[in-house]
Amino acid sequence: MSEAPLTTLAAAVRPVDAAAAAACRAHWDRLTKPTGSLGHLEALAARLAAVAGAPTPAPGPALALVAAADHGVAAEGVSAYPQAVTVEMIRNLRAGGAGANVLARQAGARLLVLDAGSLAGPAGEVAELPPLAPGGAPVMVRRVCAGTASFARRAAMRRDQVLAAVAAGAEAVAWLAEEVQAGAGAGLPQLALGELGIGNTTVTAALAAVLLGLEPGVTVGPGTGLDRAGLARKREVVARALGLHRPDPGDPVGTLAAVGGPEFAALVGATLAAAARGWVVVLDGSAVAVAALLACRLAPAVGDYLVAGTLSPEPAHAPALAALGLKPLLDLGLGLGEGSGALAALPLIRQTLAVGREMATFEAAGVSDRC
Amino acid sequence: MSEAPLTTLAAAVRPVDAAAAAACRAHWDRLTKPTGSLGHLEALAARLAAVAGAPTPAPGPALALVAAADHGVAAEGVSAYPQAVTVEMIRNLRAGGAGANVLARQAGARLLVLDAGSLAGPAGEVAELPPLAPGGAPVMVRRVCAGTASFARRAAMRRDQVLAAVAAGAEAVAWLAEEVQAGAGAGLPQLALGELGIGNTTVTAALAAVLLGLEPGVTVGPGTGLDRAGLARKREVVARALGLHRPDPGDPVGTLAAVGGPEFAALVGATLAAAARGWVVVLDGSAVAVAALLACRLAPAVGDYLVAGTLSPEPAHAPALAALGLKPLLDLGLGLGEGSGALAALPLIRQTLAVGREMATFEAAGVSDRC
Repeated sequence: MSEAPLTTLAAAVRPVDAAAAAACRAHWDRLTKPTGSLGHLEALAARLAAVAGAPTPAPGPALALVAAADHGVAAEGVSAYPQAVTVEMIRNLRAGGAGANVLARQAGARLLVLDAGSLAGPAGEVAELPPLAPGGAPVMVRRVCAGTASFARRAAMRRDQVLAAVAAGAEAVAWLAEEVQAGAGAGLPQLALGELGIGNTTVTAALAAVLLGLEPGVTVGPGTGLDRAGLARKREVVARALGLHRPDPGDPVGTLAAVGGPEFAALVGATLAAAARGWVVVLDGSAVAVAALLACRLAPAVGDYLVAGTLSPEPAHAPALAALGLKPLLDLGLGLGEGSGALAALPLIRQTLAVGREMATFEAAGVSDRC
Repeated sequence: MSEAPLTTLAAAVRPVDAAAAAACRAHWDRLTKPTGSLGHLEALAARLAAVAGAPTPAPGPALALVAAADHGVAAEGVSAYPQAVTVEMIRNLRAGGAGANVLARQAGARLLVLDAGSLAGPAGEVAELPPLAPGGAPVMVRRVCAGTASFARRAAMRRDQVLAAVAAGAEAVAWLAEEVQAGAGAGLPQLALGELGIGNTTVTAALAAVLLGLEPGVTVGPGTGLDRAGLARKREVVARALGLHRPDPGDPVGTLAAVGGPEFAALVGATLAAAARGWVVVLDGSAVAVAALLACRLAPAVGDYLVAGTLSPEPAHAPALAALGLKPLLDLGLGLGEGSGALAALPLIRQTLAVGREMATFEAAGVSDRC
């Protein structure tokens, strides 16, 4: 597979509108509140304005994508849950019983699951699976592999599989866009990104170590609840993989092939495609954050389209957000994944957009400004 | 005025249901997520269950009360905004243009403003003012004084005025209850509490110093944006008042009379009345937190009905929340007041209730539990 489509995708991301952000800040300073008193939401408002290209954008549709895959490295004993959980949870998402379903319904968000490489079926399968119940999510199957190889032993994927998963992520965004007809003039769409895959905090730790230049001892965490012995094993596995592959952070595709996974590549594609469409991309936990870092390597302008929904307890998350220059909206110890932290933060984005559009100015309300 | 009604109000607050909280925790441990992975929301769920007396309570109506008053101490040059702003902002709330209006509409919350002692009219006025526009808030006028006396010179209020304001807060809760017919079996009502009043961060600093045994140098902050000279003046004013009155923290009514304000007394009454009805009380900033501390002195069982919506930048807020044993849901530097931080946090409470009721268990979804 040629890498040209990836280059085209990255080139489609345009710089955000700094003038709209400045106009937004000036507008917010005229609203009937002490200057700056809405704290971090004021910075968020300026960011949303820059993405939308308007000082007070209207809210567009809420959207959510959960990319799923399985990981050969799970066989190394790095997870507190059996590998079967990935496929079982995809089914739970279809049936509407997962945390992401509940939070998507609460946020009024259209949720799509992308099976980019789970063990639910054969590699190469392409299918569209409907929800199993009202309130469940459809599943887009673009299975570039049936689980990866264990990167502790060899490369997780081939480059062409990485590129196919990136394309699948972009296709998932196109599907969501069509579903909600989120076209120009319809308000600012917000895309919550999430992931699912037993073993993928190990992948996250490896990718974060490569991208941030950190030791695995710093980036490896307990994931879904690993004990002390498991944690030591997980650190050793990541250290071994990094020594084996020596991934080049300047080669995002090669890094994903060596120590990544299909859902990470899909999230890179989704991030690029959403930014190219002018959507705000709301990040969930550490896995989504490292995918965003990779997207920024491919297209630096992407960074301005991102909002950090949450800070998870995974140790790779805070340094990844710092590298992205993002401050999380929520800091509640959310570590479920599935986009749950991003979905939980969506109301804050809606509130911020509403304040910009509906709150009165000092002048209009006849309220005295500062002494 | 006799203090008997206050005693009755405090005695009506019953202990929460610890068994429901335990059943809630057991239920959440069966949901299809890694144990504890919804972090602080899991503790919140148990608290909501304890208040509702059910492991997975349904959400009830969202309600909001903003108590407003003016303060004689504003004449000492302790605010960055002129005193007229209190009355102007009450009008802005009636017209629907204040931040609290926008956030209440976003949360689907019924908002009531209580004028407990502003300079909008004469002391003793009792009235019900309708909204000035669709989306605006009605104003209940129970004006126990037309602004307080400057506590830097004499007591802010008389004890009977404190008691009248407490009763007005309870009456405001009764009005909200009637509006939404929030009766038994209708789900768990959530009451966001807020305040409005130029000068009231000075009052908050004085009350927090008394209740927490802290120096004014610790509890006084910049409020709506005071400069360095103003901050020094504010510290001096609070220190002078505490030396003049030497309020007894064991006498909440006396403390409120000496260095309090009508909106603080009203919030004490509203907190007691809401807890007595079995509602969850969602706190906003430092002023609401010190009112909650006073309510807890009058009825210790109240503490279990409280949720901290937000951590504001005011220095009295963190120690007040620590004394209440509460961890804030949001930490976004919100310092607007008007209940805005509490209203901004309401979606997190709704999400938490929905997760408890709608998320599948491992057994029901056929998902494997831990290895």
